Amino acid sequence: MEQFILHPRLARDSMYVASLRLCQVRLINNQDFIWFILVPRIDDLTHFIDLSSDHQKILFKEINQVAQILTQAFSPERLNIASLGNVVEQMHWHIIVRYQDDKAWPDPVWGRSFVPYDAAYQSDIISRFLTVFQNYEAS
Amino acid sequence: MEQFILHPRLARDSMYVASLRLCQVRLINNQDFIWFILVPRIDDLTHFIDLSSDHQKILFKEINQVAQILTQAFSPERLNIASLGNVVEQMHWHIIVRYQDDKAWPDPVWGRSFVPYDAAYQSDIISRFLTVFQNYEAS
Repeated sequence: MEQFILHPRLARDSMYVASLRLCQVRLINNQDFIWFILVPRIDDLTHFIDLSSDHQKILFKEINQVAQILTQAFSPERLNIASLGNVVEQMHWHIIVRYQDDKAWPDPVWGRSFVPYDAAYQSDIISRFLTVFQNYEAS
Repeated sequence: MEQFILHPRLARDSMYVASLRLCQVRLINNQDFIWFILVPRIDDLTHFIDLSSDHQKILFKEINQVAQILTQAFSPERLNIASLGNVVEQMHWHIIVRYQDDKAWPDPVWGRSFVPYDAAYQSDIISRFLTVFQNYEAS
């Protein structure tokens, strides 16, 4: 069971997709981009260097796993991978599928208005993620 | 000796600071921010998932090392850590010292005009980095 407290802004702006060993995987509610975040289930964590060396290793493994899944599921031209924390201090890593014809290219995606998902499209994105994810878990 | 070819845009926009086992450490030539990049010395590398598992481990160790050094040298309020690649396809990781009174806060730093360093200030930033770096190397 997840005991950790998700920052209310992350809870509002994203929805639950899956749990890895360390992180919760969530989808940002903005259909302009296929934009996932990984949130380590550790309370009061802001700074990368405050993670233990073991947790850092697991985190990077999970970043790699999600990057592999997104590559297979969505064939991005680039993946943007980032931890900023300027607005929400709870540590979270963005992993964002980018295409050269997306709404922000070549700029970063942050700081733009969100366009909330159409329910059918959101459920399609999540099920494409989970299909590849379940193959990984099973392999 | 470094055989790898640095992207001309990275060569133009940043200056050499130090070499780690895998990455070159460089300082972006914009005095509005204390903004370092790590460039793995591997040719034709764009996508994170194309790094071998061993290289990923070293890269993340070096990200952590530079994050520790920047924390000690510059007492950031946040560190932004990111690999985007939208403009320059050669893999590079940004590690950026952020303060709540900096020129972009709370926005990300990308997409703003660069203010080239005053030489004395640049040399001060680099020497503060290298002082802490050399203590790490010696310890």
